[in-house]
Amino acid sequence: MLHEPTHKEILQSAKNISKYIHHTPILTSQSINKITGAQLFFKCENMQKVGAFKFRGASNAILSLDKSFWINGVATHSSGNHAAALALSAKMNGIKSFIVMPKNAPVQKKNAVEEYGGKIIFCKPTLEARESTLEKVVEETGATFIHPYNNYTVIAGQATCAMEIFNEVPKLDFLIAPVGGGGLLSGTCLSAKYISPSTKVIGAEPEGADDAYRSLRDGKIYPSVEPNTICDGLRTALGIKTFSILQKYLSEVITVSDDTVVKSMRVIWERMKIIVEPSAAVTLAAIVENKNKFAGKKIALILSGGNVDLQNLPF
Amino acid sequence: MLHEPTHKEILQSAKNISKYIHHTPILTSQSINKITGAQLFFKCENMQKVGAFKFRGASNAILSLDKSFWINGVATHSSGNHAAALALSAKMNGIKSFIVMPKNAPVQKKNAVEEYGGKIIFCKPTLEARESTLEKVVEETGATFIHPYNNYTVIAGQATCAMEIFNEVPKLDFLIAPVGGGGLLSGTCLSAKYISPSTKVIGAEPEGADDAYRSLRDGKIYPSVEPNTICDGLRTALGIKTFSILQKYLSEVITVSDDTVVKSMRVIWERMKIIVEPSAAVTLAAIVENKNKFAGKKIALILSGGNVDLQNLPF
Repeated sequence: MLHEPTHKEILQSAKNISKYIHHTPILTSQSINKITGAQLFFKCENMQKVGAFKFRGASNAILSLDKSFWINGVATHSSGNHAAALALSAKMNGIKSFIVMPKNAPVQKKNAVEEYGGKIIFCKPTLEARESTLEKVVEETGATFIHPYNNYTVIAGQATCAMEIFNEVPKLDFLIAPVGGGGLLSGTCLSAKYISPSTKVIGAEPEGADDAYRSLRDGKIYPSVEPNTICDGLRTALGIKTFSILQKYLSEVITVSDDTVVKSMRVIWERMKIIVEPSAAVTLAAIVENKNKFAGKKIALILSGGNVDLQNLPF
Repeated sequence: MLHEPTHKEILQSAKNISKYIHHTPILTSQSINKITGAQLFFKCENMQKVGAFKFRGASNAILSLDKSFWINGVATHSSGNHAAALALSAKMNGIKSFIVMPKNAPVQKKNAVEEYGGKIIFCKPTLEARESTLEKVVEETGATFIHPYNNYTVIAGQATCAMEIFNEVPKLDFLIAPVGGGGLLSGTCLSAKYISPSTKVIGAEPEGADDAYRSLRDGKIYPSVEPNTICDGLRTALGIKTFSILQKYLSEVITVSDDTVVKSMRVIWERMKIIVEPSAAVTLAAIVENKNKFAGKKIALILSGGNVDLQNLPF
């Protein structure tokens, strides 16, 4: 896909990935409604395959590739949810995947990718090493590089999440999604534009990695320099494609403290009995820190993932 | 209700409580299906109000009371989910609740009951003290005692859980529920008998509190003497009413080790991203310890609750 996905293309993406993905539930919690004073709808992408929305985009990217590319497989560099998502989606379609990962990546992340059948290529833990190693892998294997977010078919895949929300919950005032590289958020903006233009889309971002906030404020992409946040999925910078979509359609970015993120994460665990990672809880944190703004409003939040180390919880 | 609930009475109970309870989701997990070799359907009563199925029975008991009894409220002795369930249901109906609780009960349990508006009366941590204190409370207040399980309207309320399962998932080979006092399990047996008689109902119980297993084997109710298990919801003995129903309709009780319970609990947390308490994980443990028996079968499991102390996890 060489352009911003159209409504028709997102609908087609939803159709293509439908038999692979989980149509995740939307949950409500009266006690969290009471705490926040708003009417909240939680889209549980923590229950998506591999425990994160990333499986939508990765699946759509693989299924959108011309089949002639399948023979050499796909590749990416990631130590997070995109790596697991790409590996599993590749496996389900019977193709190979090559995942470049820093050698100091957490053992659970390595295990997840291996369990899903991905071939891991270790590199030094620097962005340069990642990129040069990936380049080498692509050259040697002929695999197709699937970028975690700066890729229109990935964005179209992530857009299917908001599409499901709008199909189930009409007349939303706001839809809040986390923003890291912007794949989920830009897809969300597109679905809102096509299906529910009166819904304002908001990005939620930790203060310690507020590059998206600054980038959109100043009209230029800032890199993510030494991000300092517990939200490990939100440490990346925007890409050209995601930035351009967000510039056009996003209502605003709200930044929140890690302290509120951890408290919000705990409220979700305790009240909803579901496991979300810090990067997902950033959405509720945005409401908690801005109660007046959201009081009485009808709001959907995308709980983007649920991959945490149970041995190392922040509470 | 003075007799074993009829099909019509369970249908009426479902109708009465429908606007108070959550119609909880039934989730599936391909990775747990793969681990067990069976096709599993998890009924998420951990997402029920107050975090446990107990809210169904408590609500039904209160709604079934003649309104002339409401003026003096309801009472029970419990330090667990039934106490919170009765307090919340009483509050939602605008009536008082009196909860007798041992003074050494965990602070979270006290907080939950107080948050739901229940009046706590503390007693010494013995069964005798609980019962005599409750008697006094009932005498002084005129409140109606709602037993946690040995009560037909409570059993009819718990039966609505299996009813929802059978309405959504046809042709189940087995339905597995935890067994403590037997309220949930006996209600489950009744719904199976009325709606899906070909489904075998199984009780799952920790080895360290196997009184239900022994009671049904020997045809007499054994007390629960010094139960030794992490499953804090399953330490009670059967009551006359639940025992009688189980004797007639239950297929069998399977006992499992606490070790398998903790492992199964962790698998559910990690793979399904939901929070269940040990008493709920006993159902999956029964399958894990009996893989051959359940291989290839279509099985529903009732995840009975999700109330855990996040500061004190068993893994």
